[in-house]
Amino acid sequence: MDKIKRNERLGAMARILTETPNRIHTLGEFCELFGTAKSTISEDIDLISNSFAQFDLGRVETVAGAAGGVRYRAIPSPKRVERVLNGLAQRLKEPGRMLPGGFLYTSDVTAESATAQALGEILAMQYYDKAPNFVLTMETKGIPIALMTARMLDVPLVIARRDSRAYEGSAVKINYIAGGGNERIETMALARRAVSPGQRALIVDDFMKGGGTLQGMVDMMREFQAEVVGVCVMISTSTPKEKRVKGANSLLILDGFDQETGCAIVRPSEKYMN
Amino acid sequence: MDKIKRNERLGAMARILTETPNRIHTLGEFCELFGTAKSTISEDIDLISNSFAQFDLGRVETVAGAAGGVRYRAIPSPKRVERVLNGLAQRLKEPGRMLPGGFLYTSDVTAESATAQALGEILAMQYYDKAPNFVLTMETKGIPIALMTARMLDVPLVIARRDSRAYEGSAVKINYIAGGGNERIETMALARRAVSPGQRALIVDDFMKGGGTLQGMVDMMREFQAEVVGVCVMISTSTPKEKRVKGANSLLILDGFDQETGCAIVRPSEKYMN
Repeated sequence: MDKIKRNERLGAMARILTETPNRIHTLGEFCELFGTAKSTISEDIDLISNSFAQFDLGRVETVAGAAGGVRYRAIPSPKRVERVLNGLAQRLKEPGRMLPGGFLYTSDVTAESATAQALGEILAMQYYDKAPNFVLTMETKGIPIALMTARMLDVPLVIARRDSRAYEGSAVKINYIAGGGNERIETMALARRAVSPGQRALIVDDFMKGGGTLQGMVDMMREFQAEVVGVCVMISTSTPKEKRVKGANSLLILDGFDQETGCAIVRPSEKYMN
Repeated sequence: MDKIKRNERLGAMARILTETPNRIHTLGEFCELFGTAKSTISEDIDLISNSFAQFDLGRVETVAGAAGGVRYRAIPSPKRVERVLNGLAQRLKEPGRMLPGGFLYTSDVTAESATAQALGEILAMQYYDKAPNFVLTMETKGIPIALMTARMLDVPLVIARRDSRAYEGSAVKINYIAGGGNERIETMALARRAVSPGQRALIVDDFMKGGGTLQGMVDMMREFQAEVVGVCVMISTSTPKEKRVKGANSLLILDGFDQETGCAIVRPSEKYMN
């Protein structure tokens, strides 16, 4: 293969690395693709790494060792995180989002790929060192954010269902207490083959009020003898203060609704504010 | 701002463009970011465009006119499409995926972000000229593929539910005939505010047997006075041959199961084979 010039390599390398977040590519892979020496590829990587750092576009890191190489991780700066969460809070404050029962209409926002991607980046970067084997969510609204978190971690997504369906095969079913306020028993099902004993789960959902659904997912992981390395949620309500699940990592806090305008009172969690 | 060298710009530009598929960035945006003249940015774009073309990494295109600029579209080559679909078919042929009732276990595959991304690219590129305003799917398993299709088109995802939930606000409900074989009436609900009259919908789902659920989504769009520009599905069964929905674009075909091994007989649709 002809030798490719640096100017022609850089864009392609950036594309290949960012397309596969958290996945290690060997230098040899790029040497072969571009017909170039390792030392040259190393210089390319430094250039990309510096340019990403300069424009807050994530990190391109060299990983040493036998299984080493180079990988991309979207690690937004604290400033960028704050901007993303403030922007999201602003959108959720728009008029007309208040629903009966103290609920907030978020379906348009949660199903937006760019938003899901931005939130997935913020969540994933906090759990790289815990090395989860998969991300777990409960259908339906948390799926986009959970999928993008899984994408950033380069792990599969596992989706718990309200119902075990024929096309999932044999399933584990548990009951859990749902609905902060008007409590009721609900059922959650997960395909038996979806999780293996000893795996590490990162739980991600869109909304927490009482925390029963999230605690249900924690209980489900116990049934599978899987370890929970984190429980994340896009928005949690500030009341009730005591949640069924403990220590959840919430991006936004919903304090309630303005009685006059009907607008949500929502803000980034303190830990994300500088 | 200091002038940034070309070597430092190329990676960052590639990252910014591929992060926002199908979104037009003005040259002025890059001029400002990098403190560089338009002519220089144009040369950068040509370099990135050529390198993407050379390595089958998608297209970076210049769009003329007042609202013009440059955009990235992931347009996999026919060869790449065939490789992706053959790889997926191979995985679905693995032993142990046959479930009672002629169903195929696909939950691990459909919830994988890399697979969803690859299929989303293949679907999206066929509908750029139809300019859908959103992608519609029905919960649950189609969501990852539909989300990635929406991401590639830079449009929102809209999710129809089995049930209208309190936190979706007022909803339109329809009945549809589900389950090719043991037919039954099911309900599908969609938040009233999710779709506006005159919008164009691209329908994406994971599995089609009788086509009832997909036809339900078509009927739902009629209720909203929205136009359906395409109906896509990851896998459809070859029997029954007559589907309730007409003209669906299926990536894979499930011909049945090998009676001895229990392995699925699955292949890419003819239109995707060269």
